[in-house]
Amino acid sequence: MSDPRFGLARHIVLPGPLPLDGGGRLAPAEIGYETYGTLAPDGGNAILVCHALTGDQHLASPHPRTGKPGWWARMVGPGRPIDTDRWFVVCANVIGSCLGSSGPASLDPATGAPYGMAFPVITIRDMVRAQALLLDHLGIGRLAAVVGGSMGGMQALSWAATFPDRVQACVCIASAARHSAQNIAFHEVGRQAIMADPKWRGGDYYASGDPPAAGLAVARMAAHITYLSEAGLTEKFGRKLQGREAKTFGFDADFQVESYLRHQGLAFTDRFDANSYLYITRALDYFDLAEEHGGLLANAFRGTATRFCLVSFDTDWLYPTAESRTIVHALNAAGAAASFVELSSPFGHDAFLLESPTLDRVIAGFLGNGR
Amino acid sequence: MSDPRFGLARHIVLPGPLPLDGGGRLAPAEIGYETYGTLAPDGGNAILVCHALTGDQHLASPHPRTGKPGWWARMVGPGRPIDTDRWFVVCANVIGSCLGSSGPASLDPATGAPYGMAFPVITIRDMVRAQALLLDHLGIGRLAAVVGGSMGGMQALSWAATFPDRVQACVCIASAARHSAQNIAFHEVGRQAIMADPKWRGGDYYASGDPPAAGLAVARMAAHITYLSEAGLTEKFGRKLQGREAKTFGFDADFQVESYLRHQGLAFTDRFDANSYLYITRALDYFDLAEEHGGLLANAFRGTATRFCLVSFDTDWLYPTAESRTIVHALNAAGAAASFVELSSPFGHDAFLLESPTLDRVIAGFLGNGR
Repeated sequence: MSDPRFGLARHIVLPGPLPLDGGGRLAPAEIGYETYGTLAPDGGNAILVCHALTGDQHLASPHPRTGKPGWWARMVGPGRPIDTDRWFVVCANVIGSCLGSSGPASLDPATGAPYGMAFPVITIRDMVRAQALLLDHLGIGRLAAVVGGSMGGMQALSWAATFPDRVQACVCIASAARHSAQNIAFHEVGRQAIMADPKWRGGDYYASGDPPAAGLAVARMAAHITYLSEAGLTEKFGRKLQGREAKTFGFDADFQVESYLRHQGLAFTDRFDANSYLYITRALDYFDLAEEHGGLLANAFRGTATRFCLVSFDTDWLYPTAESRTIVHALNAAGAAASFVELSSPFGHDAFLLESPTLDRVIAGFLGNGR
Repeated sequence: MSDPRFGLARHIVLPGPLPLDGGGRLAPAEIGYETYGTLAPDGGNAILVCHALTGDQHLASPHPRTGKPGWWARMVGPGRPIDTDRWFVVCANVIGSCLGSSGPASLDPATGAPYGMAFPVITIRDMVRAQALLLDHLGIGRLAAVVGGSMGGMQALSWAATFPDRVQACVCIASAARHSAQNIAFHEVGRQAIMADPKWRGGDYYASGDPPAAGLAVARMAAHITYLSEAGLTEKFGRKLQGREAKTFGFDADFQVESYLRHQGLAFTDRFDANSYLYITRALDYFDLAEEHGGLLANAFRGTATRFCLVSFDTDWLYPTAESRTIVHALNAAGAAASFVELSSPFGHDAFLLESPTLDRVIAGFLGNGR
């Protein structure tokens, strides 16, 4: 097959308009995406994988800017738990982001200049609607499964709630059906850090060539702590010093954990747009699947034929197990088929991205049962 | 008694020099402090209360800048658990801070200008040594008790380890014997937020009249989240909106928790110096009582006659109960008299500052037994 719609590093401009939860419309809607494997003639083997806050469509191919392996290469590929010899896998950059899909850095057709803060505030459901347009374009009616961790898990839930007829199975890992006050609080710190950077210039920094990297780095540092467990940080870093024998009694990065965090912050600014960080954190904070369904989460899944698989990690304090359990209770109340497992890991929220034979077995097993 | 050394809003310039753990010397050493109650003729009824990171000497008197009641007025006063009809209570601003004690905003005698980052990096033990100088000045040889929560608890432990003969009893609340990797990580985020603010100017901002308030506010916001429990935030704010019926699809503080955090950040900048925040967080990160005693915490207390009372709160994730337990195990190994209680509270780390009849009883009981 040499269908130009399929393959790595694809990009499509969909005319739209895409109606948005905030009342506006996005037109055109650009989407950067990748596909892996071969679409079955009946279109029945498609799996959509949804990425997390700062993720991208480079699911199992090297990242174009960092050169690092795809963010879930260990999960997706030939012979992997999501086996591309069998499944046709799609991963699309969410709208609001900055790796090929429409976001604040995209050109506003009304002005010919980057949107900046004129980009409309979007929601998780808007991201999902954009993905649905992409699937239409790819000729995929119904997904064998939608799979995601963290914000990807929210999209997976939103897919099942918004397009129940298009989703056979839903895998939601290390996620939640709504953002908690603490989740919102951490994001607000990040947004304030970006907006406090004078280089942010009200979001209009693209022409300057000098983006608010310092503020974005601080935002990333604060968020990064929430991705790791206290025990994991202690095991990995403890109070170990960084390339020195003794404390310097100064403000250099004496401790390895300081050096690590600073590096995480700086490296992030090379690959991510500060305004996209504002927009996507906002979409996350706005996410409340129950609210979209009359305040009762079970209503989001009433009468659904979709099968659900929920996975949490015991040391994840960003989206703790209790959040997954809330979803399972709602699925049970709605009479939906749901399996749930809490996995043990020392790595906190990040566990879903890391080597985990148990997670591999859970996902491969759940997808296998779907045949 | 009209001894000018005693009373509210006292300030003393001690010639020093005060030798510091970092190798330098502080001279003179200024200390802002308050005393409550009357010192017994034999000097035997003195209790030193140590404050937390952003605390001050206004333990039970209104704060001079905010007008708010003293930070532990509910604990200290006539008829209170620390009863000033019986005890002579001293509270001193720690060195490094900005409410009357020597810190980066103080004048460097070598230049006649504020120290800024030329102020020496100090440790918790340095703070304690400065307090010991103050007690000498006040004519107090031996403390009936040293009491503190959070960073105050670290000072209390450091007092017992550094001057065992001067401490009859030690009360350490919601604290730890060393800063964990996660603790350091959160502080590093705060420091980077301050240093990323162009108004910080390498710490030399005093003459500008325009301090790095935006960076300091972000630092405070990040830290403030760690003072509260996830459950407490959910109970207090949940996803409630701030003075509006619906989400605005913008970047205003739609959620109450955002508005609250922004307020906390801004209000803090009115009363605290950004450089002091850098220095005191550094002192906290450097704190490791075991390291000061050959790597074994029990060595810090070997042969001590001091009685110890440890208190933790079950929802405190900044200094969780496990940290207090580590201290208790070391005290047991050292053969010290130690009592320990974990209290239940929905309020996380902040619980030690809030209404807690159980905490009141524990402290009053422990001090009463000391007579």
